[in-house]
Amino acid sequence: MRIKFPVVAFFLEITIIILFGIFVKYDISDRGRNFPKESWLYPLFQDVHVMIFVGFGFLMTFLKKYGFSSVGINLLIAALGLQWGILLQGFWHMKYNEIHIGIESMITADFSVATVLISFGAVLGKTSPVQVLIMTILEITVFACNEHLVVNVLEVSILSDCWWYFPCYNNLKKNIFTGTLFLWLFWPSFNSAIAAAGEAQERAIMNTYFSLAACTMTVFASSILIEQKGKLDMVHIQNATLAGGVAVGSCADLNILPFGAMLIGSIAGIISVLGFKYLTPLFASKLNIQDTCGIHNLHGIPGILGGIASIIAAALQVNNNLSPGMQAAALACSITIALIGGAITGLILRLPFLGQPSDQNCYDDTVYWEVRLNYTGDSTELQNLQKAYSRGNIPSNR
Amino acid sequence: MRIKFPVVAFFLEITIIILFGIFVKYDISDRGRNFPKESWLYPLFQDVHVMIFVGFGFLMTFLKKYGFSSVGINLLIAALGLQWGILLQGFWHMKYNEIHIGIESMITADFSVATVLISFGAVLGKTSPVQVLIMTILEITVFACNEHLVVNVLEVSILSDCWWYFPCYNNLKKNIFTGTLFLWLFWPSFNSAIAAAGEAQERAIMNTYFSLAACTMTVFASSILIEQKGKLDMVHIQNATLAGGVAVGSCADLNILPFGAMLIGSIAGIISVLGFKYLTPLFASKLNIQDTCGIHNLHGIPGILGGIASIIAAALQVNNNLSPGMQAAALACSITIALIGGAITGLILRLPFLGQPSDQNCYDDTVYWEVRLNYTGDSTELQNLQKAYSRGNIPSNR
Amino acid sequence: MRIKFPVVAFFLEITIIILFGIFVKYDISDRGRNFPKESWLYPLFQDVHVMIFVGFGFLMTFLKKYGFSSVGINLLIAALGLQWGILLQGFWHMKYNEIHIGIESMITADFSVATVLISFGAVLGKTSPVQVLIMTILEITVFACNEHLVVNVLEVSILSDCWWYFPCYNNLKKNIFTGTLFLWLFWPSFNSAIAAAGEAQERAIMNTYFSLAACTMTVFASSILIEQKGKLDMVHIQNATLAGGVAVGSCADLNILPFGAMLIGSIAGIISVLGFKYLTPLFASKLNIQDTCGIHNLHGIPGILGGIASIIAAALQVNNNLSPGMQAAALACSITIALIGGAITGLILRLPFLGQPSDQNCYDDTVYWEVRLNYTGDSTELQNLQKAYSRGNIPSNR
Repeated sequence: MRIKFPVVAFFLEITIIILFGIFVKYDISDRGRNFPKESWLYPLFQDVHVMIFVGFGFLMTFLKKYGFSSVGINLLIAALGLQWGILLQGFWHMKYNEIHIGIESMITADFSVATVLISFGAVLGKTSPVQVLIMTILEITVFACNEHLVVNVLEVSILSDCWWYFPCYNNLKKNIFTGTLFLWLFWPSFNSAIAAAGEAQERAIMNTYFSLAACTMTVFASSILIEQKGKLDMVHIQNATLAGGVAVGSCADLNILPFGAMLIGSIAGIISVLGFKYLTPLFASKLNIQDTCGIHNLHGIPGILGGIASIIAAALQVNNNLSPGMQAAALACSITIALIGGAITGLILRLPFLGQPSDQNCYDDTVYWEVRLNYTGDSTELQNLQKAYSRGNIPSNR
Repeated sequence: MRIKFPVVAFFLEITIIILFGIFVKYDISDRGRNFPKESWLYPLFQDVHVMIFVGFGFLMTFLKKYGFSSVGINLLIAALGLQWGILLQGFWHMKYNEIHIGIESMITADFSVATVLISFGAVLGKTSPVQVLIMTILEITVFACNEHLVVNVLEVSILSDCWWYFPCYNNLKKNIFTGTLFLWLFWPSFNSAIAAAGEAQERAIMNTYFSLAACTMTVFASSILIEQKGKLDMVHIQNATLAGGVAVGSCADLNILPFGAMLIGSIAGIISVLGFKYLTPLFASKLNIQDTCGIHNLHGIPGILGGIASIIAAALQVNNNLSPGMQAAALACSITIALIGGAITGLILRLPFLGQPSDQNCYDDTVYWEVRLNYTGDSTELQNLQKAYSRGNIPSNR
Repeated sequence: MRIKFPVVAFFLEITIIILFGIFVKYDISDRGRNFPKESWLYPLFQDVHVMIFVGFGFLMTFLKKYGFSSVGINLLIAALGLQWGILLQGFWHMKYNEIHIGIESMITADFSVATVLISFGAVLGKTSPVQVLIMTILEITVFACNEHLVVNVLEVSILSDCWWYFPCYNNLKKNIFTGTLFLWLFWPSFNSAIAAAGEAQERAIMNTYFSLAACTMTVFASSILIEQKGKLDMVHIQNATLAGGVAVGSCADLNILPFGAMLIGSIAGIISVLGFKYLTPLFASKLNIQDTCGIHNLHGIPGILGGIASIIAAALQVNNNLSPGMQAAALACSITIALIGGAITGLILRLPFLGQPSDQNCYDDTVYWEVRLNYTGDSTELQNLQKAYSRGNIPSNR
């Protein structure tokens, strides 16, 4: 680790800086307009940015001994992913061998990072930092080829090695919803940020808002209904409440009317709860697929539901320019690329020199982090620590 | 609970979807404008949205064993309340039997949710999820009739059954201010979001900002002055620092000048601290009114102070079109509706089949939540858990 | 404390309200424009505001027994500092003896607060609330004379009295990155909020974004490389990942191209990690300078690096109107004023009647905060508490 990770990280960063130096320029097409694009796109970008770093980061902090890694590795993935995403997407839209970037590029770069973070949820606690760097590069490359977010999360099922892990909810009860709240709040921005400005964007905001609200209602109701003791399961509330945002994604900007969005959200909430209850144990016991965060239930199935909803919406002619056949083809294409891309990524990540952690080292911060001594405030101890530190001996709590 | 809650929740959601299907359409009055409304209203909406879900949610997480419920039920109230609020407010402004909604509707829906959440603070830990659903429906209906936020929080005094509860601040010391900070930060957006665009809106932003700053200074000073040992009381800092935002609310958009706003905020801070120190124990011991979060001190009294300030502002002719008599009438009307609405809500919530928790079950997450076993990382335990889980036996820590 | 702090705080607040009453008016220069300034400046302001209150506040919560003070005193500094900052900056730009304020004034006021909060990081746990009030007034006065943010943080080295303190990272592992994330996310807003609208502003956003991303990569790589065990040090990840935002600050709006920003960020990340590893112990052991949060490594050295980068950028003629000599003079001027201002502030804060805490009282919340009893939910205990409370005896856990 001590040599391998720095070598890979520095190599990637130097490569990226050189490629940026050769290709990337500021986009100046929007200059001089009365109502500049950045003035209204930048707040949307910031909402998406908060989702990526705070929302996804904290959604994965439920593992008692893996909090540092969840938030810290999330930051590492995002930092690498957004640079690589800018480059990859830029290569597809080059003009005169130059990549012109603006706020819109930053939004789409954050989108490609989201893909990787969703996958990271499935392998959380079971991957080394080097594997994470490789995974980021590979998945963003696949994503740039597909550019469909809907079902990309299917891709990660294959690569788990550790035993399936029972999520351990710890004493920090009040914090496990932090990530959920920030995702819930800003999902309307996420679904509308790349919609066409004006009417379509406003519809995307409202449809997502209503889909999430309806989804939350059905999740609370079905979580209590399904539990033997009639209690709320916090895994459902933490995750399935967001399924409405995923499911409405592919038709958020269409003219599906608020009640259509609420129907989609309601159904997504119910099937997501059912997935957590019945599908996750089945995957773990029958197929030996371990999905730490249950991303199949939050992103996979609701994503497919969204694809089906957009086919129905096209068939009902809610907007003029949509063909149900094209929607179905897009869905099929996304699933295919996700499965193939996921299989290849999984195979590459299993390469032995990438430092896959052994079973005992899974879900443990202390494998990768220097966790400091828990000093309690005694002043003798303080002076001893100071002496130790000034001699260069940094104490640790291991 | 297992049957009652899902039945009520599904019934409400299905009813709402049907009503949305019949009445609700997108607002298209703003289309084609050069500088579309959503581009500047949407960031304001998002600030209000963060207040509702993160601010109010975390303001109530100080109960050691009630963190899940505080944030989780907060989410449930908001999800139901915003849908119901859209409908109720829409019925008052229907055109040709259609409700046209846009970003502005979402802002006012969030406002009506705020009313319920403030009340929820008073009964926190003492209500069942079914009671919460009924409370949301009733209070938003009352709010839609009044549409004044100022003193609506008076309404909840009547309905408490449990013994008054001494707030137990737990070891998570550093987190109890999270809710406070997010409310403090975005209160300028809250007070300005429904002000007239332009000058009035900018005044509302600035007045609220200065009122909060001055309030914070006097809260720190009077909290130390009032404590026997000359220390800061964290209950004061957590709550009373926000009284400046409440008090300036009713005249935030008026031409009261920054120093006027600071005067209002300074006074609000002092009386809110005095309320927490002297009024809350009095209410608990003499009137048997239990106010878990001390909302009388944060919202009630500062709200009335704000009403009085707006009467004075009208008398001083800060804006041309204001009459002191009308302001006084609005204040009186709000208090009356709040008291009557609160009494009725309280009586309905006491109906026995709504599942009011018994005294022993108050302030306890485990009554409504499936709290998971605290797994410590041992790999044998992990495999046992996996086996138990794949057999369908989900272990709990009770 | 019980008398001294309230007297100083009330005196300052009353003085400020009087000065506001005499001088401060709303800015009306922007009225009637088609695309009003507040509509796009206000979201930028809110991002900066979140950084000040949430970002800085939580960045300092790593001290196990000092969480209340970190967030609470942060709020106090900000509330006083923004009012004083508005006045001081206003006095420099008065028209007809009136200070005209708008959203821009609020942004620059938040900037001056940031200066104080950075310094506060160096003396965290070692200052009394009265010292903090005086420090806020003095530093904002110095800042208003200099108005350069780059290296102001050098100023605080001189004033520490307690023994150097080894940061004690506590069990709340997953929270120590909260402050980091909110600063990381909104630093592009910080660096762009006072840039010229349009092209320069958009460059400032993008350059900061890329500098932070590249910096994060090199911090992860060099943190692992430098640790004997090849692990990540959470102090590095928490702090040094932000050095890219500091370093690119002084040339963020220049035409340095994304790869230039990434070069600056990469170097800043590496030298910041080196500073935490080698400079902080050296300062503590040789110079007896105790820097609780390591602000020299996060703000000091990266700030100077940024100054040097802007001299190079001017020499390379990235923008027409820059002179390397002027940039160098600005850097030298800032360092000089910072050192002199810091020395004077340090000397004043050492005045005995300001209540400097003794060595034993450093880093301890209970010296200034009334920390409440940790109630565990037993109902007899609850009733006893209620009785004690209604008799006016509020129990504490000391």
